[in-house]
Amino acid sequence: MNIFNELESQVQCYARSFPVVFERATGSTIVDAEGNEYLDFLAGAGSLNYGHNNPVMKAALIDYIKEDGITHSLDLHTKQKEKFLTAFNDYILKPRKLNYRVQFTGPTGTNAVEAALKIARKVTGRQNVIAFTNGFHGVSLGALALTGNQHHRGAAGVPLENVIRMPFAGYYGKETNTIQQIEKLFADQSSGIELPAAIILETVQGEGGLNVASVEWLKAVEALCRKYKVLLIVDDIQAGCGRTGTFFSFEPAGIKPDIVTLSKSLSGYGLPLAVTLIKPDYDQWEPGEHNGTFRGNNHAFLTAEVAIRHYWKDDSFAEEIQRKSSLISQQLKRILLEKGAPFMKVCGRGLMQGIDCRKGDLASLITESAFKRGLMIETGGSEGQVVKCLCPLTITDEEIKKALKILAESIEVSLQIHLKKVS
Amino acid sequence: MNIFNELESQVQCYARSFPVVFERATGSTIVDAEGNEYLDFLAGAGSLNYGHNNPVMKAALIDYIKEDGITHSLDLHTKQKEKFLTAFNDYILKPRKLNYRVQFTGPTGTNAVEAALKIARKVTGRQNVIAFTNGFHGVSLGALALTGNQHHRGAAGVPLENVIRMPFAGYYGKETNTIQQIEKLFADQSSGIELPAAIILETVQGEGGLNVASVEWLKAVEALCRKYKVLLIVDDIQAGCGRTGTFFSFEPAGIKPDIVTLSKSLSGYGLPLAVTLIKPDYDQWEPGEHNGTFRGNNHAFLTAEVAIRHYWKDDSFAEEIQRKSSLISQQLKRILLEKGAPFMKVCGRGLMQGIDCRKGDLASLITESAFKRGLMIETGGSEGQVVKCLCPLTITDEEIKKALKILAESIEVSLQIHLKKVS
Amino acid sequence: MNIFNELESQVQCYARSFPVVFERATGSTIVDAEGNEYLDFLAGAGSLNYGHNNPVMKAALIDYIKEDGITHSLDLHTKQKEKFLTAFNDYILKPRKLNYRVQFTGPTGTNAVEAALKIARKVTGRQNVIAFTNGFHGVSLGALALTGNQHHRGAAGVPLENVIRMPFAGYYGKETNTIQQIEKLFADQSSGIELPAAIILETVQGEGGLNVASVEWLKAVEALCRKYKVLLIVDDIQAGCGRTGTFFSFEPAGIKPDIVTLSKSLSGYGLPLAVTLIKPDYDQWEPGEHNGTFRGNNHAFLTAEVAIRHYWKDDSFAEEIQRKSSLISQQLKRILLEKGAPFMKVCGRGLMQGIDCRKGDLASLITESAFKRGLMIETGGSEGQVVKCLCPLTITDEEIKKALKILAESIEVSLQIHLKKVS
Amino acid sequence: MNIFNELESQVQCYARSFPVVFERATGSTIVDAEGNEYLDFLAGAGSLNYGHNNPVMKAALIDYIKEDGITHSLDLHTKQKEKFLTAFNDYILKPRKLNYRVQFTGPTGTNAVEAALKIARKVTGRQNVIAFTNGFHGVSLGALALTGNQHHRGAAGVPLENVIRMPFAGYYGKETNTIQQIEKLFADQSSGIELPAAIILETVQGEGGLNVASVEWLKAVEALCRKYKVLLIVDDIQAGCGRTGTFFSFEPAGIKPDIVTLSKSLSGYGLPLAVTLIKPDYDQWEPGEHNGTFRGNNHAFLTAEVAIRHYWKDDSFAEEIQRKSSLISQQLKRILLEKGAPFMKVCGRGLMQGIDCRKGDLASLITESAFKRGLMIETGGSEGQVVKCLCPLTITDEEIKKALKILAESIEVSLQIHLKKVS
Repeated sequence: MNIFNELESQVQCYARSFPVVFERATGSTIVDAEGNEYLDFLAGAGSLNYGHNNPVMKAALIDYIKEDGITHSLDLHTKQKEKFLTAFNDYILKPRKLNYRVQFTGPTGTNAVEAALKIARKVTGRQNVIAFTNGFHGVSLGALALTGNQHHRGAAGVPLENVIRMPFAGYYGKETNTIQQIEKLFADQSSGIELPAAIILETVQGEGGLNVASVEWLKAVEALCRKYKVLLIVDDIQAGCGRTGTFFSFEPAGIKPDIVTLSKSLSGYGLPLAVTLIKPDYDQWEPGEHNGTFRGNNHAFLTAEVAIRHYWKDDSFAEEIQRKSSLISQQLKRILLEKGAPFMKVCGRGLMQGIDCRKGDLASLITESAFKRGLMIETGGSEGQVVKCLCPLTITDEEIKKALKILAESIEVSLQIHLKKVS
Repeated sequence: MNIFNELESQVQCYARSFPVVFERATGSTIVDAEGNEYLDFLAGAGSLNYGHNNPVMKAALIDYIKEDGITHSLDLHTKQKEKFLTAFNDYILKPRKLNYRVQFTGPTGTNAVEAALKIARKVTGRQNVIAFTNGFHGVSLGALALTGNQHHRGAAGVPLENVIRMPFAGYYGKETNTIQQIEKLFADQSSGIELPAAIILETVQGEGGLNVASVEWLKAVEALCRKYKVLLIVDDIQAGCGRTGTFFSFEPAGIKPDIVTLSKSLSGYGLPLAVTLIKPDYDQWEPGEHNGTFRGNNHAFLTAEVAIRHYWKDDSFAEEIQRKSSLISQQLKRILLEKGAPFMKVCGRGLMQGIDCRKGDLASLITESAFKRGLMIETGGSEGQVVKCLCPLTITDEEIKKALKILAESIEVSLQIHLKKVS
Repeated sequence: MNIFNELESQVQCYARSFPVVFERATGSTIVDAEGNEYLDFLAGAGSLNYGHNNPVMKAALIDYIKEDGITHSLDLHTKQKEKFLTAFNDYILKPRKLNYRVQFTGPTGTNAVEAALKIARKVTGRQNVIAFTNGFHGVSLGALALTGNQHHRGAAGVPLENVIRMPFAGYYGKETNTIQQIEKLFADQSSGIELPAAIILETVQGEGGLNVASVEWLKAVEALCRKYKVLLIVDDIQAGCGRTGTFFSFEPAGIKPDIVTLSKSLSGYGLPLAVTLIKPDYDQWEPGEHNGTFRGNNHAFLTAEVAIRHYWKDDSFAEEIQRKSSLISQQLKRILLEKGAPFMKVCGRGLMQGIDCRKGDLASLITESAFKRGLMIETGGSEGQVVKCLCPLTITDEEIKKALKILAESIEVSLQIHLKKVS
Repeated sequence: MNIFNELESQVQCYARSFPVVFERATGSTIVDAEGNEYLDFLAGAGSLNYGHNNPVMKAALIDYIKEDGITHSLDLHTKQKEKFLTAFNDYILKPRKLNYRVQFTGPTGTNAVEAALKIARKVTGRQNVIAFTNGFHGVSLGALALTGNQHHRGAAGVPLENVIRMPFAGYYGKETNTIQQIEKLFADQSSGIELPAAIILETVQGEGGLNVASVEWLKAVEALCRKYKVLLIVDDIQAGCGRTGTFFSFEPAGIKPDIVTLSKSLSGYGLPLAVTLIKPDYDQWEPGEHNGTFRGNNHAFLTAEVAIRHYWKDDSFAEEIQRKSSLISQQLKRILLEKGAPFMKVCGRGLMQGIDCRKGDLASLITESAFKRGLMIETGGSEGQVVKCLCPLTITDEEIKKALKILAESIEVSLQIHLKKVS
């Protein structure tokens, strides 16, 4: 029995889908201990937007370590944090006319969400927060209450409170104006729905199945928040950092959330880092009210700084993502036309696209088949029915081509098996 | 205005006590941007047990990065995780006859605690957990409900539920047998206290003010848990990894908790890492029930493995810690005799000792004074009344001597100011 | 200062709308201490369906007291409880082919609702209950969580938990199929809405503003409950006991709820009484699990028995209510046509009809004006915008005529004042 | 099968202990349908302090009904409510120098407690309330959270929140100063126990097993409340209305609670009535915030007024209760000496005394045996180990003598059976 079976908890999950031992990785390629190479369309669940061991950051990181730069600093001021903040301000916030205070939370997305919840509740004096169907915001208790997935919710062991669930964009079909419905509840003193502290949303639901909120819906949510003085939190942990084609996923909608959470690809190198961005008026924390040991991960500050300076100094990287997004979108549609079934649909936005197979077992067949062929790719959605293409944003056209070829073959063989089973 | 004031959230805390910008660090010494050196008796709030940028780990880390070892791996199997698990099993678990499954949680202590709560509730089907006065277990919602500190609790913005608060060892004085009191509540069908899923405790309360649980008390808690089939969780995040003189802080008591949380110094290098250890019978997770993006921080796996192989291959390191603990204990007592006031007392255990000043403002005077003299040291306790000596375990006798000299001077001058104010 | 101002809590409410001291009452007429008579269209908020001091019950009650019949009996068996149960079985349950166990709860509607919640949660093992917008179910903590009104909810002082709020019949307009929306949430494993223990509803929302659930909607709710094994609770405290034209308000819809709560007019004489009816399979109480001192109010058992035997031995009383309902419906429409404004509408069902004035201040003007003219009548709805005609079911045609004449005049003068204010 | 088995819910409890059908009752005697007489030492669980169908109230009640006095009045002003308030003010409040506003809640004890909780939370802006081990305060959700009994708590089906459980007077033995313990928790900013809105207590725990709070303990609780601005609520539902020898049970302690709940024997005739007494400063209700249909039970106002005027116009009734209390106390001690086992003890205070049998099955044997001999008497305590003598306060010395003779015989025979079983 290997050490993983012997010693590691059975909670492991991805390891079951990709049952090999990985050893090295660069760019879009990950290599197992036996030397087999895989194109990585999982990309650390969206944490490796710049690929594995990106050479620009790698060199800087080695230098930093060699020179005994501070590694761990709690919330102390460090030279490296100063550099990160400066780069973040100069290249991310200022050009977008966004004015936020940066809170370094514990270096996990769920912790950034917990901080967002606390400050929203503190600032408004209200307890409930509106979250949406199929949303995913983490699994620590506060964030878990926001998360829709029953598999995760069921593990809480206690009731998940202080959250009001509302339908995500398009959940009841295009013809139903769900924002109008929420407004009716807000306006009615006897609806039984008190005004919430905040509304939290993902512009593209990653774990929920690549559901895309339209620009109109996002604008309507923002308008509702402004009218009722409810804070708007955008959880941009998976969709942010360029994944959908702009640094923040909400840029195309022209909205300005009150609070934004970032993590996953923020450090650029896969190192743990998370921040909660808060409009200055709402930065009403008392010193140390929300704390945590690993808020000062300077290796991550460094790689994050380098990533920002290198990739976000001008628009070229964003444009490149958008070009690749179109490419993948077209290719996926073509593949479905050629190999897919009529019920399968392309879904998502930017480099957060995929194929909605409608059936979880079909999607699983496809990803298993792809892995055997050298493509690591995962499923999402409430029944695992969506095959998600989360490639590094730095992927080459060659690699895209190669990966989609594997995907096309996998769809073809999987559909045959699936249709045989069904009939 | 500097970038920290302009851009960073006002939640920052340590940065207010030590208002300089740090740049480099090695061993027990941290250096600011202007070249000033400080002896570090804060040690990343107990996360730098092996000192800053420990050279053994540093070399290995640089090599690993150079060779494009996997950096970020979710919960996938990697070569480096395999090495860590093997080392942890061979040098930590087996020699102590401990049989645990290792769950890699999100890389923060609070996340390890959240996982511990969930599995305890799942396994027992009960909701409440007993936590103790002055306990600190993190600030995400589930962990925060366990934490006693009102400053942190007040930030929740929602009620903190499903926790029963009980007095920590000695809280009501030595003559009161608080475990007997708890047992009476458990045995009485009409007490209003239902049997909890678990009892969670720190053997030495770090944030709570270096309160030490006696061996007898720990044994009594374990016996109570066994009798009523309640799980025993030891949160060893601050007191573990050698801080009190043995790898696990509960070793001297001879107890075997059902669940143990580790983080802070586990990675050895200050890199984010956390695990929840679970007795095999209770490892009843379904795949992915508790997840998180940064559970596969391979840089931390590497430095953790090196730390274990280097420092815990035999008893010598533990013995060395114990020797230094005695040294510090004697020195602190001597200092108090010579410079202190009668109401000041040495408290704590191992290299987790300090001085209970009884007054928060006196303790603050001392730490401010020390910092000016080149010693970074912080306070703890419900009113910040305890000056905490959390030096690296690798500190030299010379450094201890130097630091305690500064501490003695700081006590002397601070007491003078304090007594003037009071009179 | 009178004793009410001096000694009674300022929580009093109806006393503010009708600021006189009442002394005697019979049938539909209530008389104040100065001898002024009022037609009673409040009828104890629907608790006096058979009028004040109904002579049939009155005689029986005096006899019972004279003969030292048991007054108070906890949940002991008494001769009088036996008689009530027999009459309830013979004249109410059996003819309607309803099979329920009768639980005598504390003699208030809110207590019957608390019992219904408990048994639904116990039987299903689930915690949440679905309640509807504008619903009113009482103000003890469990029932209050179901109630929609913010004025009442705000008094809780603690979060109101374990309730999911859904739109009542027609809340989002006729075109929106809200039951289909709920079903989508139930079917989706990632919606964030777990299956509830029960759905609780009023067929006509009394306090909520005389909102009527259609037969189709009620059938659809029942079908949804059956499909997902969710219990259906009808809170028939205000709409039951004949108020809408049949003993149970849900009879026209042909549904069979799993649990029904009754109170208000159940005792027939205004004496406190409440029951929770439970399908035999769900009567899974352990002895005494839900208790209360005044569950054995034998005076109320007696008057309830007499009311049932006298009014419900055949269909004539129900037919008479329906005839009066049509009469009132026609008259109200005529009045609005002659005296009302275009925005005013007749609403409600059976003898639970009223006028939706759209504006709370207009409705208040009308009821104040009516009281001065000898008609006691109250408002309801989220903004008090509905004037509610809750006359005794035993009212004579003469009395209806007289009351509606007053109402017509009151509307006329109030509208003049209202329109002046607005313009 | 009789109608009770066929139709009534299995939740019935007392009916199982006393399986006959009762028909008539006067004074301390209750008669079943077959003409068998029983001395009533249950007295409606303390709701019949003036005996069954007390002739003074009976005559007044018949007259009132005959004259068509208002029966049901919501919270409207009525002549009869005026009379009750005047009598309550003149004979109860003023002579005791107590200044309270009277809130008429729904006519059950649990509803009075719910109101007390709400106003305490509203006034203080805090959520938690301290309740004690073995306390009983009702079973609607808010009150149930205060109740200690696991049998009742388990029926909630949801977590019982916002209550902190503390040990009742003497719970940890006489030597443990539990009030000092609570104060330490209040004073410690890191104890994890926030200041509560209120402390609620019974001076003698009825359902909890006749546990008596000492005068010293009550004074200490009041002092603690004053010091920390926590409201003191005395739940005097069972122990009040003369049961312990004074109208309010807390009179001997000389304390002045901020809020008092009364119900059970308040109406004097077993009719449903409950009030919450609130110090004028804390009567901060908005109109109708806490409401309920049966707050205007005028029959109960009438009998309550008569009871007060007749029994509490001077000290003679109180003195008579105290004389009988001493008598029963002496007799019970004598019986135990002659017939009891060494482990059995007399417990309680006033006419709320009983025998602690230490074993629930022994206590049950005694009450079963007594019922066969013509004495209706029940058990209490967390394991039903206490035989409770709750006779009417109007009982004659002859009746006491007769009842205690039966009790003595029952103890004798039950002990024989019990000891045989044990050996």
